[in-house]
Amino acid sequence: MQFTITRDRFVQDVQHVAKAVSSRTTIPILTGIKIVATEDGITLTGSDSDVSIETFIPKEDADSEIVTIQQPGSIVLQARFFAEIVKKLPGEDIEVSVTDQFATTIRSGSSVFNLNGLDPEEYPRLPQLEEDLLFKLPQDMLKNMIRQTVFAVSTQETRPVLTGVNLETEEGELICTATDSHRLAIRKAKIEKNDNSLSFENVVIPGKSLIELSKIIDDSNDLIDVVVTENQVLFKMENLLFFSRLLEGKYPVTKSMIPTQSKTSLHLKTKSFLHTLERALLLSREGKNNVINLKTLDGQVEVTSISPEVGKVTEHIDAQIDGEEMRISFNGKNVIDALKVIDSEDIHVMFTGAMSPFVIKPIDHDNYLHLFSPVRTY
Amino acid sequence: MQFTITRDRFVQDVQHVAKAVSSRTTIPILTGIKIVATEDGITLTGSDSDVSIETFIPKEDADSEIVTIQQPGSIVLQARFFAEIVKKLPGEDIEVSVTDQFATTIRSGSSVFNLNGLDPEEYPRLPQLEEDLLFKLPQDMLKNMIRQTVFAVSTQETRPVLTGVNLETEEGELICTATDSHRLAIRKAKIEKNDNSLSFENVVIPGKSLIELSKIIDDSNDLIDVVVTENQVLFKMENLLFFSRLLEGKYPVTKSMIPTQSKTSLHLKTKSFLHTLERALLLSREGKNNVINLKTLDGQVEVTSISPEVGKVTEHIDAQIDGEEMRISFNGKNVIDALKVIDSEDIHVMFTGAMSPFVIKPIDHDNYLHLFSPVRTY
Repeated sequence: MQFTITRDRFVQDVQHVAKAVSSRTTIPILTGIKIVATEDGITLTGSDSDVSIETFIPKEDADSEIVTIQQPGSIVLQARFFAEIVKKLPGEDIEVSVTDQFATTIRSGSSVFNLNGLDPEEYPRLPQLEEDLLFKLPQDMLKNMIRQTVFAVSTQETRPVLTGVNLETEEGELICTATDSHRLAIRKAKIEKNDNSLSFENVVIPGKSLIELSKIIDDSNDLIDVVVTENQVLFKMENLLFFSRLLEGKYPVTKSMIPTQSKTSLHLKTKSFLHTLERALLLSREGKNNVINLKTLDGQVEVTSISPEVGKVTEHIDAQIDGEEMRISFNGKNVIDALKVIDSEDIHVMFTGAMSPFVIKPIDHDNYLHLFSPVRTY
Repeated sequence: MQFTITRDRFVQDVQHVAKAVSSRTTIPILTGIKIVATEDGITLTGSDSDVSIETFIPKEDADSEIVTIQQPGSIVLQARFFAEIVKKLPGEDIEVSVTDQFATTIRSGSSVFNLNGLDPEEYPRLPQLEEDLLFKLPQDMLKNMIRQTVFAVSTQETRPVLTGVNLETEEGELICTATDSHRLAIRKAKIEKNDNSLSFENVVIPGKSLIELSKIIDDSNDLIDVVVTENQVLFKMENLLFFSRLLEGKYPVTKSMIPTQSKTSLHLKTKSFLHTLERALLLSREGKNNVINLKTLDGQVEVTSISPEVGKVTEHIDAQIDGEEMRISFNGKNVIDALKVIDSEDIHVMFTGAMSPFVIKPIDHDNYLHLFSPVRTY
């Protein structure tokens, strides 16, 4: 194998696939990045067996040449070193060549690296997925959907299925749900599909996979293809494939948890409520329970929190209040997490009682909703 | 005590004194920041007994009013909470008032914090230093002197005196020295002094203190007063005092270690040599010894490093070489640390033998010098 490639493009794609590589893998070959040179270009693959990323660098892009293939072939190189090395190489171009026994030479400017490669035949093949279940959505929308749900997944391995975000369809909409059983985030979106009968449920993608995906996809509205199978999901972009294993197990039915009515409804400014809770959290996180108390007054909401050792904070913020008086305590950190991902300037906070879950949603649309369990204090 | 103060100025000064406060102190009162309000303004103090920082906020600055004192007094507040709280307060002004039993109220905008204060009478007094030994130097120069030496102090507690930077005078110059016994950094500077007979030696300031000081002083050429006593040093700026304990023990005599001649001298571009070593370090740090090899060729220097498992890197860089051929191995990380703080574009590297310490210094002046022990490999 021998090829010469533009440094910047190579660095970018190596960084992308390196995101899938874990140093803690038990399969030695997966500590490497697989490089395949064909007449058409270079394919790079990284995998930790849960997530696999494959990128393709074509020989040329628009008007400029990216790769010159002197001899097709393949090799696997240690991801940790290889990714660091290409990033630091001095030249504008990088030449990669493999001789006997996987010995690889990387030249760029004044630098010559001789690396011990691994046998590419040992590298596992990526799954070939049936594309029966396929839909499309813009990259920026997918990125937002991940941002607005993934923070709410469970970090506890006691119920593995809750460490993922659940995808399902309902009336032509895609619904993403995340919950750690104390809070719930739901995000809905219209999707484009090949087939009007597209319908699935209980497609649970590990939160970690989505966080990595989110780092790779950009803020453009280019469409991304999503292929769903029994135990894998594939995100297809131009020249990049992102595979993730799905989580096994039945995702809990969450629809019935969401109250349809409210006894007390607040209309609040998102940022102002967020900053008030952040200040209150300064004291309540000391007790490790993050409890913040909220009480309705006349045209105002009183937010308080107490740390017996340190002191107390009290804050009044203006609010439009409809319905009954309300006193409630909740995990402030969870509400703050949700307020941080709400893009709308105004929110509704809807209570059905001091001991019942309450809802926060934007005032201007129904695309997302957050649900929280109260904390028993009174 | 009761006063109202501009938020931004208060935040800045609280952050400054909080740098001296350690949460790991064994003296409970030192977890706090002492606040004293007098007719003239506000004094803040933080200390971990090694480092103490005192700032003064005058009632007014140029044309604008900063503080309004309603009632003089003093209080000590938990640094960790207090520093976080003032940073997050919503209003432009902050009102601090103390009532009975050190109960303190902080008001700003819609926020009211009630904090449990501590007895200010328990707070230790800062030392009153004799100002017999006093000299002045510009803040930006002091900042540079710290940057160019402090990285070389020892992190091992086996020889405590080496964890500090040594200050001494010689022929009207200030000399700062740091060494961990494998490398040595020396920085000289002209200073302004009250008295031509100013002379001292073995003033060893803990590296940690200097790193904190460096974060506070700015890049201006305003003069800073340095007061040296038997076991304390004091840096005096406008409205800020920075005290540090000195390290006990005899600092080693380093002057005799520096070779005065060389058998081989290289003239190199600083940045190009730095980047070459950074690439070589990618492989050699794997073996944890950071060994990089250097060999003179005809008009070039060859830099190599080897990791038996990963591979080898070879790089040739242009150099003007005077004197004998040379092969030497050294700790690449140590040389990289030094090259990073050298501001000159060109350097001399001077060798006296493969087993003798070698010198790196800028080509255009003698203000600083770095010395390194070689590593035995051949």
